[in-house]
Amino acid sequence: MTKLSQAPELIVESWLNTDADLSLEKLRGKVVAVYAFQMLCRGCVEQSIPQARRLHELLAGQQLAVVGLHTVFEHHTAMGRASLAAFVHEYGIGFPVGIDQPAAQGSVPQTMQRYQMQGTPTLLLIDQHGRLRRKSFGHLDDIQLGAEVMSLLRESDAEHSPMESKDSSGTGCRAD
Amino acid sequence: MTKLSQAPELIVESWLNTDADLSLEKLRGKVVAVYAFQMLCRGCVEQSIPQARRLHELLAGQQLAVVGLHTVFEHHTAMGRASLAAFVHEYGIGFPVGIDQPAAQGSVPQTMQRYQMQGTPTLLLIDQHGRLRRKSFGHLDDIQLGAEVMSLLRESDAEHSPMESKDSSGTGCRAD
Amino acid sequence: MTKLSQAPELIVESWLNTDADLSLEKLRGKVVAVYAFQMLCRGCVEQSIPQARRLHELLAGQQLAVVGLHTVFEHHTAMGRASLAAFVHEYGIGFPVGIDQPAAQGSVPQTMQRYQMQGTPTLLLIDQHGRLRRKSFGHLDDIQLGAEVMSLLRESDAEHSPMESKDSSGTGCRAD
Amino acid sequence: MTKLSQAPELIVESWLNTDADLSLEKLRGKVVAVYAFQMLCRGCVEQSIPQARRLHELLAGQQLAVVGLHTVFEHHTAMGRASLAAFVHEYGIGFPVGIDQPAAQGSVPQTMQRYQMQGTPTLLLIDQHGRLRRKSFGHLDDIQLGAEVMSLLRESDAEHSPMESKDSSGTGCRAD
Repeated sequence: MTKLSQAPELIVESWLNTDADLSLEKLRGKVVAVYAFQMLCRGCVEQSIPQARRLHELLAGQQLAVVGLHTVFEHHTAMGRASLAAFVHEYGIGFPVGIDQPAAQGSVPQTMQRYQMQGTPTLLLIDQHGRLRRKSFGHLDDIQLGAEVMSLLRESDAEHSPMESKDSSGTGCRAD
Repeated sequence: MTKLSQAPELIVESWLNTDADLSLEKLRGKVVAVYAFQMLCRGCVEQSIPQARRLHELLAGQQLAVVGLHTVFEHHTAMGRASLAAFVHEYGIGFPVGIDQPAAQGSVPQTMQRYQMQGTPTLLLIDQHGRLRRKSFGHLDDIQLGAEVMSLLRESDAEHSPMESKDSSGTGCRAD
Repeated sequence: MTKLSQAPELIVESWLNTDADLSLEKLRGKVVAVYAFQMLCRGCVEQSIPQARRLHELLAGQQLAVVGLHTVFEHHTAMGRASLAAFVHEYGIGFPVGIDQPAAQGSVPQTMQRYQMQGTPTLLLIDQHGRLRRKSFGHLDDIQLGAEVMSLLRESDAEHSPMESKDSSGTGCRAD
Repeated sequence: MTKLSQAPELIVESWLNTDADLSLEKLRGKVVAVYAFQMLCRGCVEQSIPQARRLHELLAGQQLAVVGLHTVFEHHTAMGRASLAAFVHEYGIGFPVGIDQPAAQGSVPQTMQRYQMQGTPTLLLIDQHGRLRRKSFGHLDDIQLGAEVMSLLRESDAEHSPMESKDSSGTGCRAD
């Protein structure tokens, strides 16, 4: 039996769209969908952000939290906090968005490093016990997403094996 | 506590894409998604059929069956069996499709009448116990669909209340 | 200097959406856009028919005629006149549609043979003098189409060379 | 006979994607399509920029110039030159883009004021003689655009009346 690994905590410089700072620890007990994105990444703007918005509108609540994470690994001066705030406003993003903490050295921010993300968009699904159940780069089919989120929401038992994606595709920004 | 109603059996003239005739009774033990459509209904062709195809590819198997039901209530001579067979081929439909039995009188076929469908597309979700859990006219958001199907797949308990749709829209063909 | 060839006359069994039968000869003096399609060809339904409908709404009139041509080369029994009439109604096609005359032998109808079309959708653009100026299989970019049609509408001079397509793509049904 | 008005010169702070600064005067003799946009305006990102890119790829050359104009009237700190440069790179914009000169007072930049634009996206079509032939807010159908551009390219005569738009729609950012 595979032991599921605990999802490392998010390292966030500051938050938008929320009164109180968030953390995975504070969200324990909920299923959490983390959308890592960059505001100038086309795959994020065209597919991932709209999906996150719909997931938030349809299913978020007592049991599910949708969270954005702005993981800037290129064009850093182009995507500062003021630009992100305007983006969040113009694109009608209603869920909290954290800014991934820049690294002391190198262009890849700290949460992105910690999760070894390949680029943006990346989706993380974390279960009620704080365990990482999906990490995928690129677009995930909406039906598959709905099914996986509901599967996590319906869980009450202890150990489960990670889900396999049957469908992950689309254009994204790769961090090499 | 609401008692869930049993889904009435499908009344099918003949089947395409299956060796043996199907019925809800034969499918008992599986969750069943029935897509009622007409091959010349634009909402069906543009939204419902592509969704059914993806649901079938992503999640159908031991526990879920996806079934088409050709419920012709207008242009009857235009949508006969030969036309439907060509449509099924050209649109790459891989799941079984039943032809709803025409009524002795009137234009609305028998299963469509029995379920009091408003038009096409109509989606029926039936649980493992053969109970009708969703009946909706028009397009259902993919995330919502994935979540509802998974919710039914995860059930083992006895009685549940019908799901509420938060999102049902899109153009369809209304039968009045 | 290339001599432009005269567009061969359409050979049409019968017409829909018009009181009087049409012919290229009757349309002489107008630019004519002929959309050859099959009602069960996905590339036609998804791209070509919507384009024809918009071209008709935006630019058709005294100087431009948009004409559909139903060139059935497969699934003949599935796409008879009754089925086509229902399709024309359901898809809101407002321009005249001719049914290409079946051949005495073989599956490819007569106009399709005469023009040596590769499949559907095929677009023919014919100038005010009845000369064939474009014949292309697959989807043509809308901007390119608008530009070519207007270029023909603005012509008053005698001889021109055929236009080159910079952009022709998309899925279609190939007749081999 | 209506006398067509000369298009006022663009007032540009600086240019991207071009070695030499541009001006309508330098472009005289060409038809010029000016796309006024903001990088965080959804209607621009989803419809106007993709259209400009295709117009540039399909028809730009000796006779037609496609030019972007970044007319920022809101979120000024969010859309500075560094952000715009990253946007131009990520969205594969190959045509020159000028930054509309901020006003001494007020949020609306100078070219935008001079042309009395309602918001973004706004399309300007300027003929070979430097006269303004279309100014429209929102999305213009691709077929209509192709036709209008070609109509201007085919002109050689002196005076013409302004074109009427039959189709202008879509979401945009309105400046009030």
